[in-house]
Amino acid sequence: MNTLGIGLIGTGYMGKCHALAWNSVAATFGTDIRPRLVHLGEVNETLAKQRATEFGFEKSSGDWRAVIDDPDVQIVSITSPNQFHKDMVIAALDAGKHVWCEKPMSTGLQDAEAMLMAAERTDRLCVLGYNYIQSPAFRQIETLVKNGRIGRVTNIRVEMDEDFMAAPDMLHSLKHRAESGHGALDDFAVHPLSLLQRLCGLPVEVMADAARPYETLKDAHGVDKKVETFDIASALMRFRDGLTGTLIVNRSAWGRKGRIALQILGTEGSILFDQERANEFQLYQRSDELEIQGFRTVLIAPIHTPYNHFVPAPGHGLGFNELKVIEANEILKALSGKPARLVDFSDGIQIERVVHAMAQSHASGKWTSTLG
Amino acid sequence: MNTLGIGLIGTGYMGKCHALAWNSVAATFGTDIRPRLVHLGEVNETLAKQRATEFGFEKSSGDWRAVIDDPDVQIVSITSPNQFHKDMVIAALDAGKHVWCEKPMSTGLQDAEAMLMAAERTDRLCVLGYNYIQSPAFRQIETLVKNGRIGRVTNIRVEMDEDFMAAPDMLHSLKHRAESGHGALDDFAVHPLSLLQRLCGLPVEVMADAARPYETLKDAHGVDKKVETFDIASALMRFRDGLTGTLIVNRSAWGRKGRIALQILGTEGSILFDQERANEFQLYQRSDELEIQGFRTVLIAPIHTPYNHFVPAPGHGLGFNELKVIEANEILKALSGKPARLVDFSDGIQIERVVHAMAQSHASGKWTSTLG
Amino acid sequence: MNTLGIGLIGTGYMGKCHALAWNSVAATFGTDIRPRLVHLGEVNETLAKQRATEFGFEKSSGDWRAVIDDPDVQIVSITSPNQFHKDMVIAALDAGKHVWCEKPMSTGLQDAEAMLMAAERTDRLCVLGYNYIQSPAFRQIETLVKNGRIGRVTNIRVEMDEDFMAAPDMLHSLKHRAESGHGALDDFAVHPLSLLQRLCGLPVEVMADAARPYETLKDAHGVDKKVETFDIASALMRFRDGLTGTLIVNRSAWGRKGRIALQILGTEGSILFDQERANEFQLYQRSDELEIQGFRTVLIAPIHTPYNHFVPAPGHGLGFNELKVIEANEILKALSGKPARLVDFSDGIQIERVVHAMAQSHASGKWTSTLG
Amino acid sequence: MNTLGIGLIGTGYMGKCHALAWNSVAATFGTDIRPRLVHLGEVNETLAKQRATEFGFEKSSGDWRAVIDDPDVQIVSITSPNQFHKDMVIAALDAGKHVWCEKPMSTGLQDAEAMLMAAERTDRLCVLGYNYIQSPAFRQIETLVKNGRIGRVTNIRVEMDEDFMAAPDMLHSLKHRAESGHGALDDFAVHPLSLLQRLCGLPVEVMADAARPYETLKDAHGVDKKVETFDIASALMRFRDGLTGTLIVNRSAWGRKGRIALQILGTEGSILFDQERANEFQLYQRSDELEIQGFRTVLIAPIHTPYNHFVPAPGHGLGFNELKVIEANEILKALSGKPARLVDFSDGIQIERVVHAMAQSHASGKWTSTLG
Repeated sequence: MNTLGIGLIGTGYMGKCHALAWNSVAATFGTDIRPRLVHLGEVNETLAKQRATEFGFEKSSGDWRAVIDDPDVQIVSITSPNQFHKDMVIAALDAGKHVWCEKPMSTGLQDAEAMLMAAERTDRLCVLGYNYIQSPAFRQIETLVKNGRIGRVTNIRVEMDEDFMAAPDMLHSLKHRAESGHGALDDFAVHPLSLLQRLCGLPVEVMADAARPYETLKDAHGVDKKVETFDIASALMRFRDGLTGTLIVNRSAWGRKGRIALQILGTEGSILFDQERANEFQLYQRSDELEIQGFRTVLIAPIHTPYNHFVPAPGHGLGFNELKVIEANEILKALSGKPARLVDFSDGIQIERVVHAMAQSHASGKWTSTLG
Repeated sequence: MNTLGIGLIGTGYMGKCHALAWNSVAATFGTDIRPRLVHLGEVNETLAKQRATEFGFEKSSGDWRAVIDDPDVQIVSITSPNQFHKDMVIAALDAGKHVWCEKPMSTGLQDAEAMLMAAERTDRLCVLGYNYIQSPAFRQIETLVKNGRIGRVTNIRVEMDEDFMAAPDMLHSLKHRAESGHGALDDFAVHPLSLLQRLCGLPVEVMADAARPYETLKDAHGVDKKVETFDIASALMRFRDGLTGTLIVNRSAWGRKGRIALQILGTEGSILFDQERANEFQLYQRSDELEIQGFRTVLIAPIHTPYNHFVPAPGHGLGFNELKVIEANEILKALSGKPARLVDFSDGIQIERVVHAMAQSHASGKWTSTLG
Repeated sequence: MNTLGIGLIGTGYMGKCHALAWNSVAATFGTDIRPRLVHLGEVNETLAKQRATEFGFEKSSGDWRAVIDDPDVQIVSITSPNQFHKDMVIAALDAGKHVWCEKPMSTGLQDAEAMLMAAERTDRLCVLGYNYIQSPAFRQIETLVKNGRIGRVTNIRVEMDEDFMAAPDMLHSLKHRAESGHGALDDFAVHPLSLLQRLCGLPVEVMADAARPYETLKDAHGVDKKVETFDIASALMRFRDGLTGTLIVNRSAWGRKGRIALQILGTEGSILFDQERANEFQLYQRSDELEIQGFRTVLIAPIHTPYNHFVPAPGHGLGFNELKVIEANEILKALSGKPARLVDFSDGIQIERVVHAMAQSHASGKWTSTLG
Repeated sequence: MNTLGIGLIGTGYMGKCHALAWNSVAATFGTDIRPRLVHLGEVNETLAKQRATEFGFEKSSGDWRAVIDDPDVQIVSITSPNQFHKDMVIAALDAGKHVWCEKPMSTGLQDAEAMLMAAERTDRLCVLGYNYIQSPAFRQIETLVKNGRIGRVTNIRVEMDEDFMAAPDMLHSLKHRAESGHGALDDFAVHPLSLLQRLCGLPVEVMADAARPYETLKDAHGVDKKVETFDIASALMRFRDGLTGTLIVNRSAWGRKGRIALQILGTEGSILFDQERANEFQLYQRSDELEIQGFRTVLIAPIHTPYNHFVPAPGHGLGFNELKVIEANEILKALSGKPARLVDFSDGIQIERVVHAMAQSHASGKWTSTLG
């Protein structure tokens, strides 16, 4: 059996999530290639050592370049803060490594373009970490849509909401400053757009608005500071062939914890999904007999691959972290030359161009093309 | 006890709904004024006679003017097609009658303005039939919002969806022709806007888009005819004081039967409501202890007046028609000089101006003021 | 058009509910027979007069016998406390009136048997007020079951829960004394049993247990008093042909307001219903394709008669009181010689025998036949 | 850091689940003890070898005794069919190994008693695999109940339903023969009982009934064979201090996939849970203000430990397999001398005695003590 030497940069939320995925993927899927957890990089060297032991890595470093330079490393998981993605990705690719970089590509379109160029000059795998497309429920939804099960899609709506920036008494922080980006659009919009990309393609024209719940917040010293970012954004979207839709994102929506709510309306039926209940989706079919027409709630089951690799019985549910295990398996499939379901840099930059166009349209108050 | 002589014009869906309300309101509320069902008007004289017997009216006519001229009639329920509202309302007011006219005021803003002028030159009651504001659940929601229970509202979203125009094989009809209006905006938008008007005021600026699921449909002769109206519309809304929101209406949304879904997000909590489950609403409060924070589903109960006038026990539920009974009671309260919860012509025309601005912004592709 | 002279005894919850039904039934259904609200009886004469005006009755009396003796009265709605049912029903039948008596028949089986005998010696209509069987959702469920849509029923579960006797600080009252009956079994069990009677017949053998949440409660003087009734009861049930089921009733179940939760499991599918969301039911069919199997939530629609008589559009919902309007219409149908859907005294006594057998089995600790 | 040598017997559903848990527990929890996957036993030697590679075990054997005898193995995960548990557990304990054995202990009470005796003569850890007690939602429910959040529990109901034995055309198999046990009681009842054990203790007296959906089924040769087991069972339960409850299990309940539905009713509130939506629970508190009383749906969040070890953000959800990771961590805690949340053999046998008493009461038709 082949092994794949894993390097991991970053040990935060996503770093741990990658580590768990690399630990579980072979046992879950019985993969041809078995990951070997080689080298963990984390700026705090002591922490790096501790996490390496916990996560099962052989080596650790305080310098991410050591991970990339390690000859035993063949793929680098990059889970550092977004502003470091560009340099790490380009260095890794130039060193001949495969790359699995968490979304978004970077903090600005220009950096993302540079990353795409680096990707285009290698034959290495360049994957962006878009785990929501991996969910068995979403895969089934995509299949239903593609098989025409709800006919032609006529209207699509997506909302992504959390409440981690909702509290009136939170302190003014980096996320409230313009340098951190536009706000909710940057934090969230790429996720629902990655779903739309697979369902109906990305919008070609957008018209967005944005708002902030608080004009000022106090900093740690009790001083009122202006909030410069937008925790709330909404957009009208026009797709090819007359399809329209809406996207709403909000990181100050009390009560919403991990909501990504999709409504897909078609000429023959409708599909609903909410990431907060990720193990089910709802389908309405107009072809059902009139007396018993209704949205059916489908619980994911072994028939909804790759759920079957986790549990052989229906209705037992997968967790968020297990989406990453599925994504890791897709990477191993790609490396084995099999068809794989992944967001590469070329797909990813299109998503980010849409976000950029939304921010622009908010600034200009005008419909804006996403095609650059 | 005083009686109130009722005239009713129209015997369709809303005509019957008014008739049922006038039949039940005294028994339900023990009103000071007792309605006396005097005169029913309906263009088909035979049908008028039959319905008068069924509905309990003393007289019937094939001519609506006979209803208005009847000296025993003190208030006229107008439930005819929208294009007739103007003439009927003005005639009724000029004859010194009170008016309860189904929404929308008319088919165009100009007619509505004429109706408003007629209203302003009388002291008669001029009520528009906006029953959704009467629901006990919505009343409680409004109270919670007004009492600051969810703090300051920071984002508001409303969707109204049905599927009666969703079928690909439906015949091309009047509703597909431009003469019937803009489409879903006209049919639906006034309802959610009547709710917003009470919760946070109407938007001052809007940006809308619209679409149609089918470019052409066959007529009764099998000939392809162009669809001119828009079954789908979405709008970005800006309110006073920085509040933003979205409104989406769709009369071709498979599986949706009477959906009016509200999401009201505030600095201290959130409220959710869906007219398809009109006897409940959901509330999230950030002040709840962390371990048990969640959306609570509140079933309407006697404490949520005027539910108590229908059933003394909680959780038994009201139906759609009973909203009209509540509205009739509000009219009787107004006629007794008590404070009443109603949409008058002055409120109503503001709602319709917003719809008009949305249609304009769709045509122009620009943000449009609703203030005229 | 024929009229039917209505007498009503009682002006409480159910009295008002009957009055509303008699006021609305003709307008709702366009009935052949039009009710004429003749005579209202209520022990408090002043209240009787007031309610007669509100409810639209021509006359009122402080003596129920005056209602029964009134020659203009052809049917008597009996909504007085249960202990008076027997005398009133027998007197009404003996006076040649039709009877619509609220459930249960009486406070003991012996009285009920006497009422049945009185019914058997007349040709008058003897109806018990079991409104839950009238719900459009339940009617559709019954049709689905009878048409074999879920195959043969293999297991049935029903729970009825409210919380009006849940508070630890409520005062000791009549309902806590043995003279008021067994407790939740008497208050509630007849309702779910009326549904089972139509779905799968009544159980032939039962085994019940019962409990009380509080051993003692304080009376108005602060004195601890023993609770003698049982607010909680559960029963195992055996039906003909090997079917088994469970019935659970609880009038001290915090949070439950009007729950009647049915689970009907069959060889080909399952059906779920909850009276707290009475305008919908859920159906699972094993014949659906595997990828999209799930419980579908069906909202009641015009196809689910007689919902269409109230609203011509789906998803708008009926309220609890409207079930009584449907029941009144069934009575008018029966009086016109048409097939009607009603619980007569012969059906009703069978329901009460089951409740009696449950109470007995609780006392004896043994499986008990319901067949007497 | 200490390591713990893992032996695993069995590679089916639960075998894989244990393997995944041992692979992930250190990375998830940053445990003091790091598992070392030493030896995998599986009767098919080729399969054993393949799975050992996939699961990351160093060695494999076709003979389970080799696993137990391996000096590098310190704990043995036993996931073989139930009839082999006794011999394996006793051999492992006698060899000085810790044991983590999947529930139920064995196929009969006598074997379980022998296992308990073996456990009592060692100081090794003897854990039964009851993963549902590990769920963050259930842990929070237990805490709420123990802290008196819903007052004293007055009524408890639990249902466990799946549909893998619901099809009328399934073939007659071992599970339909008496030698496989009683049926659904054996398969399912231990799970809900493990939850009750923690919430309110086990029942002291039970009264059960059971049924089968099909009297006969065809075998592979098309021959009708009698079904001897019971796919459906229901029980009345009496606990100490007057508490009563019901338990219903059904492995032929169409549409139910992994339902374990709990209703816990108390003097101050109620709690609801369903394993099919395992990442949430519902709480009703009578202390809430009347206008906003309702069941709140709480999504699991970092405050509900140990969810925080998997994801630092709320609402992202855990999957079924992750319960086993939590259970593995509890074992490591126990081995480190820390308090741990586990079902040991002494707890487990009490659960199985209740199941046994239920089966007996079904046979005798009488209330049966669970205390032996």
